[in-house]
Amino acid sequence: MSDHYVGVMKGVVLDICPEAQIVDISHDVTAYAIAEGAFTIAQAYRYFPPGTVHVVVVDPGVGSARRPILVAAAEQLFVAPDNGVLSMIDTVRPVVRLLSNDAYFRHPVSRTFHGRDIFSPVAAHLANGVAPEEMGPLLNDYIREDYDKPRPNGPQSWLGVILKVDRFGNLVTNFSQHQFGGIASGNFSLAIGLTEIRLASSTYDSSLPGELFVIGGSSGYLEVSLNQGSAAQRIGCQSGSLAELTIW
Amino acid sequence: MSDHYVGVMKGVVLDICPEAQIVDISHDVTAYAIAEGAFTIAQAYRYFPPGTVHVVVVDPGVGSARRPILVAAAEQLFVAPDNGVLSMIDTVRPVVRLLSNDAYFRHPVSRTFHGRDIFSPVAAHLANGVAPEEMGPLLNDYIREDYDKPRPNGPQSWLGVILKVDRFGNLVTNFSQHQFGGIASGNFSLAIGLTEIRLASSTYDSSLPGELFVIGGSSGYLEVSLNQGSAAQRIGCQSGSLAELTIW
Amino acid sequence: MSDHYVGVMKGVVLDICPEAQIVDISHDVTAYAIAEGAFTIAQAYRYFPPGTVHVVVVDPGVGSARRPILVAAAEQLFVAPDNGVLSMIDTVRPVVRLLSNDAYFRHPVSRTFHGRDIFSPVAAHLANGVAPEEMGPLLNDYIREDYDKPRPNGPQSWLGVILKVDRFGNLVTNFSQHQFGGIASGNFSLAIGLTEIRLASSTYDSSLPGELFVIGGSSGYLEVSLNQGSAAQRIGCQSGSLAELTIW
Repeated sequence: MSDHYVGVMKGVVLDICPEAQIVDISHDVTAYAIAEGAFTIAQAYRYFPPGTVHVVVVDPGVGSARRPILVAAAEQLFVAPDNGVLSMIDTVRPVVRLLSNDAYFRHPVSRTFHGRDIFSPVAAHLANGVAPEEMGPLLNDYIREDYDKPRPNGPQSWLGVILKVDRFGNLVTNFSQHQFGGIASGNFSLAIGLTEIRLASSTYDSSLPGELFVIGGSSGYLEVSLNQGSAAQRIGCQSGSLAELTIW
Repeated sequence: MSDHYVGVMKGVVLDICPEAQIVDISHDVTAYAIAEGAFTIAQAYRYFPPGTVHVVVVDPGVGSARRPILVAAAEQLFVAPDNGVLSMIDTVRPVVRLLSNDAYFRHPVSRTFHGRDIFSPVAAHLANGVAPEEMGPLLNDYIREDYDKPRPNGPQSWLGVILKVDRFGNLVTNFSQHQFGGIASGNFSLAIGLTEIRLASSTYDSSLPGELFVIGGSSGYLEVSLNQGSAAQRIGCQSGSLAELTIW
Repeated sequence: MSDHYVGVMKGVVLDICPEAQIVDISHDVTAYAIAEGAFTIAQAYRYFPPGTVHVVVVDPGVGSARRPILVAAAEQLFVAPDNGVLSMIDTVRPVVRLLSNDAYFRHPVSRTFHGRDIFSPVAAHLANGVAPEEMGPLLNDYIREDYDKPRPNGPQSWLGVILKVDRFGNLVTNFSQHQFGGIASGNFSLAIGLTEIRLASSTYDSSLPGELFVIGGSSGYLEVSLNQGSAAQRIGCQSGSLAELTIW
């Protein structure tokens, strides 16, 4: 948060809705990494109270033709660019609208900072109780990418990606525990770059210091950790790197 | 925000004014970079509600003779060291006071942390409704530097600086769009270090990936961006680096 | 705060206690550095209002046998793993409890994220007014390490450590000003790695640019600073590095 962008957005929100309680989820999603943004909001939203308005601005296409949208799902509201950043939200029958009513925008609307001019003021008006119907017409769909679906790469092999490197250097993959939770030391191999991991563990400190292992993390996905160190630094990978899982 | 300084200041504020709604603008202004701090607060303050109290502590001279001041301008209040950090606030007839009434300080006042002992408690008392007149006598002036005025360097050439490198690696110069907004691809050159930029664009994604371009950013100044990359890393420059603009 | 963990914890708190006023102290304590976490909370807590609930999760042993505890001290409450992270809190007769009543936990309790499943919900219930007695039985003691006690290393020599590198690159040692405040230029030497510092100063800007010096900082401990630069970068040291003080 070295720059003023987030502070400006909060100023805009509080100017419209002085009672707003604003919570930061993350302002350090890797630039241009829409999948990482999709993962981050999907991990966080379910822990917030019903009625929360989420402002999800990972928006490399700001100023282009991409649409600003409002999604109502899981008793919460999400304002975001329609670029896939809401792909991982677990929605049953989401209600989607185009943000087109510029009565709720800040003017003049810039070409480069819709966070300030569109998403924040719309979110603040929603927090104030303005009805979603006011914001624009219904849309039939919005962009949903398969960020969390590794693709088969052989009979017992799948190709996935690193969704996120967390602050500890843990690597969160897109191999869900739901589908792949059966792995255990001796029955799998996870390859990332030149590194192969064959150890599974259930707590961070049950392996030896300096040892890489796979753990079913709090995210619901398989994660790669290094006891007392950064798995990302050791392996030399980042958000978006490929990971190949083989089970036997 | 790796250390406890900001948390301590918020604790001090809430102890005095439990109702305060505290918003972070930035805690990562480059150390010793008063111009960058001046730019940051100038970019943000106008979006906050009237009556907001801004705590602006970029203060390499803490403990020396520099004065602590209170500036009332634009229906808002600013507490800061008098070192130029309020230079870029757009003030018509600001009312300036010395912070000298130590009844509103925290005691003992340290030599090294006036953010905790002077600026935060004064801001909290102001937020509580204590009148500015209580804080100290009027001053005739305060330090205002020409951070946003590039100097002529030839008939159609100006020498400016990078005010800020933002989180995306965009370079915000001090060439205002008001004065220099007429540039377009083909009629200008912007030189930073060994790099020369001759392309102008109006959105972030309308140039080719990997291409440097100048854009009239949300800041009101010309910015240098790299499509899908960090202009700062590519060019190898930072806050304070020189930039020479030539127009023909 | 690049990942979602802190946002998730705040969501959990607000879901239970919508009125909570949440303040960030630090989310960037060096991974695995319990002493640095102990220093950070010890520096901050005394500035917060009575009744504040502190959530102190530096927890490399999450999922292992380490106990989750609640400490009531100094009119404040602290929830934390029992791993030494509360060692530097200045407590007279603390009341310590085991967090064992899982009626106040979030279920299912994961093996890897007790910040979300135990510490945040317990803190939120405490903020809601649930009595500490509800949380679990009294404990006779908890882990307190001697992080702030340099050990004698000769007649006039002590061996200490760097507790913290702050954002400016200042090094906070564990030599308290209470015990070692008598040092002055000419009567001491502080050695860190290959560097020896013999200069003492009372403000950050009273030494020459580029000169290392010792200062009695706002923390209550001797700190090493570099005028207009980062002492940590110059010396090449970090949180946990040794420091030897000799006085003559």
